[in-house]
Amino acid sequence: MTSRTAPFLQIALALAACAAVHATPAPAPAAPPGIAYVDGKLPLPADYREWIYLTSGLDMSYRSVGLPGHHMFDNVFVNPEAWRVFRQTGTWPDGTMMVLETRGAGDKASINKRGLFQDGDVMGVEVHAKDSRRFDGGWAFFAFDDRQPAREIDHAADCYACHRAHAAVDTTFVQFYPTLLPIARSANTLSPAYLAQQKHGD
Amino acid sequence: MTSRTAPFLQIALALAACAAVHATPAPAPAAPPGIAYVDGKLPLPADYREWIYLTSGLDMSYRSVGLPGHHMFDNVFVNPEAWRVFRQTGTWPDGTMMVLETRGAGDKASINKRGLFQDGDVMGVEVHAKDSRRFDGGWAFFAFDDRQPAREIDHAADCYACHRAHAAVDTTFVQFYPTLLPIARSANTLSPAYLAQQKHGD
Repeated sequence: MTSRTAPFLQIALALAACAAVHATPAPAPAAPPGIAYVDGKLPLPADYREWIYLTSGLDMSYRSVGLPGHHMFDNVFVNPEAWRVFRQTGTWPDGTMMVLETRGAGDKASINKRGLFQDGDVMGVEVHAKDSRRFDGGWAFFAFDDRQPAREIDHAADCYACHRAHAAVDTTFVQFYPTLLPIARSANTLSPAYLAQQKHGD
Repeated sequence: MTSRTAPFLQIALALAACAAVHATPAPAPAAPPGIAYVDGKLPLPADYREWIYLTSGLDMSYRSVGLPGHHMFDNVFVNPEAWRVFRQTGTWPDGTMMVLETRGAGDKASINKRGLFQDGDVMGVEVHAKDSRRFDGGWAFFAFDDRQPAREIDHAADCYACHRAHAAVDTTFVQFYPTLLPIARSANTLSPAYLAQQKHGD
């Protein structure tokens, strides 16, 4: 996999500003449960569509302009082990993997006369994984080309700084996950940065 | 639950034309695995958000006009036992329950500048359940008010006829479920009505 710019820009995991320069991994400690690296790379979890669904968005972006007439859905999933911990604690354990899948949108077909549905074209898949012993800041992003194992995106990429600055819980955008936000609120795990943004109406 | 018109009209399970006149159930045979009736009603499955996610749509409708500036997402889930059978066979066993959840859509918030995300407001929940020994045609629809147990929607409602006429597999709209359609195609379980529509470009 060569150095490239991430092909799809989504807010759900806020990978938008990630220039995918791949880091050289540090000597590898043991992986937490749920994560299995192969030759220093993360394989795309084969069964992520059977994981816990968190949300979908349409055309979400940091940018105020898009391509007219072009629409994309994003779907976000998390591994069940991590979901069970979040449900209890309002935050994420080591071994958490969140998968962002981007899909094409269809409009008029069969009996549908209006609105948009998801079609069979997976435009991209990215992962946000937590492994405190391995990754600077605890988390790393991975962008998958042709579903092949991927190296982490370099931690100098803007996505990491943006997640730290704006994400509601432990660098994840829980403010866009409607079933997670009330759990985090009850567990008092919302980040100071997010609470300050809410206070100032950002 | 009183007789009423279904409060949200969606294509994913094609409940759009269902006038929710509730039928008197026949003497009840034993329920298949996965379905537990209480006093002849179906309780809303409490854990459906942990089931297998099928797809999401935005503003899908049989009708070509909608409310300007008003958007809704729909999410569809199926129970894992039914999914495992579909994956193997391309069709649904007794005990299948598909849940359609409709959610409000937000736009500009936090760092999102464009597009739509799902917010915390669940606008409605409906179920399409398969129980061949109980339901005329094998399936029934249920619309839940305030998440309370619901009686099946009367089988004279248009939704049943529409599903029979247009749905790709066993009265379910597999043509809108991108991970299911290739399975049904391989298993040769697409309905003659759907295949005829595809042939004629409907």
